[in-house]
Amino acid sequence: MSTYQVPLADMRFALFDVLDAETAFQRLGYTDATRDVLDAVLEEGARFTSTVLAPLNAIGDREGCKLDRETGAVTTPPGFKQAYAQYVEGGWPGLTSPSEFGGQGLPHAAGVPLKEMIDAANLSWGNFPLLSHGATEALLHYGEAWQQEVFLKPLVEGRWTGTMCLTEPHCGSDLGLLKTRAEPQPDGSYAISGTKIFITAGEHDLTDNIVHLVLARLPDAPAGSKGISLFVVPKHRVDRDGNIGEANAVRCGSLEHKMGIHGSATCVMNFDGAQGYLVGKPHKGLAAMFVMMNTARLAVGLQGLGLSDRALQNALRYSRERLQMRSLSGPKYPDKPADPIIVHPDVRRMLLTCKALVEGGRLMGYDAALQVDIATHAEDAAEREQADALLGFVTPIVKACLTEWGVECTYHALQCFGGHGYIAEHGMEQLARDARITTLYEGTTGIQALDLLGRKVMQTQGAGLKVFLERITRFCDEQADHPALADLLGPLREKAAQWQELTMQIGRRASANAEEIGAASYDYLMYSGYVALAYWWARSVAASEASSQSASFKAAKRETARFYFARILPRTQAHAAAMVSGADNLTALDADAF
Amino acid sequence: MSTYQVPLADMRFALFDVLDAETAFQRLGYTDATRDVLDAVLEEGARFTSTVLAPLNAIGDREGCKLDRETGAVTTPPGFKQAYAQYVEGGWPGLTSPSEFGGQGLPHAAGVPLKEMIDAANLSWGNFPLLSHGATEALLHYGEAWQQEVFLKPLVEGRWTGTMCLTEPHCGSDLGLLKTRAEPQPDGSYAISGTKIFITAGEHDLTDNIVHLVLARLPDAPAGSKGISLFVVPKHRVDRDGNIGEANAVRCGSLEHKMGIHGSATCVMNFDGAQGYLVGKPHKGLAAMFVMMNTARLAVGLQGLGLSDRALQNALRYSRERLQMRSLSGPKYPDKPADPIIVHPDVRRMLLTCKALVEGGRLMGYDAALQVDIATHAEDAAEREQADALLGFVTPIVKACLTEWGVECTYHALQCFGGHGYIAEHGMEQLARDARITTLYEGTTGIQALDLLGRKVMQTQGAGLKVFLERITRFCDEQADHPALADLLGPLREKAAQWQELTMQIGRRASANAEEIGAASYDYLMYSGYVALAYWWARSVAASEASSQSASFKAAKRETARFYFARILPRTQAHAAAMVSGADNLTALDADAF
Repeated sequence: MSTYQVPLADMRFALFDVLDAETAFQRLGYTDATRDVLDAVLEEGARFTSTVLAPLNAIGDREGCKLDRETGAVTTPPGFKQAYAQYVEGGWPGLTSPSEFGGQGLPHAAGVPLKEMIDAANLSWGNFPLLSHGATEALLHYGEAWQQEVFLKPLVEGRWTGTMCLTEPHCGSDLGLLKTRAEPQPDGSYAISGTKIFITAGEHDLTDNIVHLVLARLPDAPAGSKGISLFVVPKHRVDRDGNIGEANAVRCGSLEHKMGIHGSATCVMNFDGAQGYLVGKPHKGLAAMFVMMNTARLAVGLQGLGLSDRALQNALRYSRERLQMRSLSGPKYPDKPADPIIVHPDVRRMLLTCKALVEGGRLMGYDAALQVDIATHAEDAAEREQADALLGFVTPIVKACLTEWGVECTYHALQCFGGHGYIAEHGMEQLARDARITTLYEGTTGIQALDLLGRKVMQTQGAGLKVFLERITRFCDEQADHPALADLLGPLREKAAQWQELTMQIGRRASANAEEIGAASYDYLMYSGYVALAYWWARSVAASEASSQSASFKAAKRETARFYFARILPRTQAHAAAMVSGADNLTALDADAF
Repeated sequence: MSTYQVPLADMRFALFDVLDAETAFQRLGYTDATRDVLDAVLEEGARFTSTVLAPLNAIGDREGCKLDRETGAVTTPPGFKQAYAQYVEGGWPGLTSPSEFGGQGLPHAAGVPLKEMIDAANLSWGNFPLLSHGATEALLHYGEAWQQEVFLKPLVEGRWTGTMCLTEPHCGSDLGLLKTRAEPQPDGSYAISGTKIFITAGEHDLTDNIVHLVLARLPDAPAGSKGISLFVVPKHRVDRDGNIGEANAVRCGSLEHKMGIHGSATCVMNFDGAQGYLVGKPHKGLAAMFVMMNTARLAVGLQGLGLSDRALQNALRYSRERLQMRSLSGPKYPDKPADPIIVHPDVRRMLLTCKALVEGGRLMGYDAALQVDIATHAEDAAEREQADALLGFVTPIVKACLTEWGVECTYHALQCFGGHGYIAEHGMEQLARDARITTLYEGTTGIQALDLLGRKVMQTQGAGLKVFLERITRFCDEQADHPALADLLGPLREKAAQWQELTMQIGRRASANAEEIGAASYDYLMYSGYVALAYWWARSVAASEASSQSASFKAAKRETARFYFARILPRTQAHAAAMVSGADNLTALDADAF
């Protein structure tokens, strides 16, 4: 079985030493978000996730969710329901929700370490409360007052959970194709009919009610994505006064059999004239959907991060214990029958790759959350706008890179176990299987890449990139004389300049041939992720040197940064070459000639 | 469910147009191996694998092998036994074995396409006959006459299967640690006692007997890997006259629960004074083990290839059928509700990556097999020696790269399916899970990398590399004026020169610090694979242009080569930078400070 220890030291380092979150929170008016409060949240969160959730991870994988085909009821794996009750009792669901709806009103960034802990401890379990956040956001932004009154409080308190019902059998990335219908009813409600698939937590036994947020078409809807509206459809009917009525006409038709996340209920949901209410304006559902989606995308990025960290922790433990062969430069532990495999440089390469991606990735993920807080709570409008541009820019990077790195880190960590990694009892293969969903759901890596290059860069003339580049320049200028950064700042400046140059080059190419965007998008995305990580590693070294961390902690940050710049950052060369090689080498071949 | 069609056209292209195998076989004295015979083998093999084995692939995954703990008997998934009987009846087991032991005496390279087909059709099933080949090789090289008489014929005919019993709980890569004991008996046999793990096909119901080749220590054995001997230990006792006796004291203690290859029996084998016979000289088991191992390593490389091709085939089908979004340069199929996703450049990037790795990888795998034939059958001793050096050099590259690419291709192909790829019914996730074993067993990628750089390059002063570089130079010189190769030969020559330069640079570094070998090994291995593939792609273009293939076939080869050089070969830049960055960035961090 794989184990998990919450990396409190590095989480604190990220939040307080690098991001200086306490100062930021105070400046943004979150007066309750003091270091003491945040420390208590981290420690209580660590206790809950490591003692309650982590032990259920393997059970969830083995037992899975079960559907009763007669009733449509879904039973979660043993222990999930009790763990959820403890989660609600601990007040965790509303940690970062507004206090007027029963939340604790902490900043978004204060909730992100908890999210990472939950994902690492038990990704499948974490999927049940996950989408409540998106539903909450959508209702906060677009819900009518009575809808907020009726639905938000139970969601924030965790008495109910939420879902996002977008995908249909014939439409995933292309929501313009969706067919689910919404018929207006005399009482002002709508009758929703259609089939939605891949609905995470669509049905379960953890709560009394479930709040589905459903995309559907009104009868007079224009074709395509401009004819989509958003509806709130509870599992049990709820009237405008909050009275719970009979079961609604929505039912789980089947559970998918999946590669991993067996403990997560992935449902086919059949809506058969279910009573729902319009959220926001008619035909404007896509905007509301993006509010949910962006929250979910950052959250899925953290799933990749959490799994990577858990995988690394176990690979480290195994590599220190497993004795196999001698170091090529002579025995390191001559009293043992062989050296522990952590002496071998190639094992260290895999471990350091994970460490660099995990600790650097943590800063990417936490910083994005901080930008959410700045974009919503900064006093200065220009600062809010800048944070919003940056957030839009980094969201697809965080989602795609942290999940691609999740696949990579679970790969390396399993590889450290040799053949034993392939055996279920060690738990490494579950992490690899669970990680595999994260580059698919809430938009595949390819969709994130198009979002980044097409929408976030080209459509805004690079507004978010500009903010990021300014950050890098400012940091390099400020730290120009720092001896510990002597070998890092030069390459970082070079990469930043190349990032800008490549962006302009693709822009020029795209004005002649729109296919250049799609052809460059994936490599542009990964390139961006690696340059962003170089920035975070340089900042990590600067912050650790300036901190009161131990000498060993500082050395680990310095050495990992050095490793990253020497052995991972060069991947940008391959991505740069590919992205400017032109669309023609992808589009020339006839579809039938492959 | 995923489907599989044997890629006969590309197999023929590889064998006959690129490698000119018919000429080579005739020259080597395989007079039976005419094009007609080889074509018939391909076609019959395609019929058997696609109609008998492929339909059992999903069943094997779902049902797995079952152990009866009372008797130690293992039952294979439904249909496996019948399929094996057909395999034996078709004369497939001995296709490339010597005719004096009942084989058909075809060259090794003629059997390789069959191997690829079996792996693609049903990897788990293919693991049952797989290790018979290694056992056959070991007995052919090292067995006494009576051992060959008694054991080889049933192995060649497929009436019995073989195993390789190397790994023990505490020793995998480091066989020097093994503890299994062999006690000499008065009758000249040995009593073998110990526990072996991860024994593929260690127990099953396909044949009446199983021939275990077991590494163990004699009582007077020196410590470490110089004290290991090889024994043949049948499941049912066999005397020197070939009489079958009672059950031997060897028993399957348990079956591993694995991430994939559920249909393959991965056994813990307990030897409890089992009767065995020494194969070869005392304490010289490691050399015999390497004979088996090299055969198995090339075979596992083909597993990666087979799975990659099957994954690509299904991703292609899905990408042509699945309608989602419009091409960024305007609708390509305006009469449909959306364009098939194969119009999107990023989907093509994934498909072309698979295509380039599969078709180029096929040549790498087939050529290695041809070198086996040349190394054993060429008249000229110098030619044999050169082929042997080349074979030793490419074996770890074929094993590691084709399996790493197998993981990559099954990743991309699944990704083309979006969320549907994660669902069991599409069969893509099984391919990804099955592929995951291939970079682990028969030596992890890290072990292959050490074998390549440490043993095959440094210990031989680059003998095999030299042969490969001469091939590249000769080819580039011969084709210097070929218009279709105008953009390929320059980069190929550059990479070849860099390959040599990097090798010398690492050699210099390693003479100062032995850790530089381990620190550079993985990146050196992958770099070598990508340069080798560039050579094979250039040769593919030259061969297809000179062939009578269709214009569309030729265009596909040209475009895929162009894609490969523009978008995959640049990965060598990242590997080159990493491998010369020095061991220090891997070794500096204290093992406790990670």
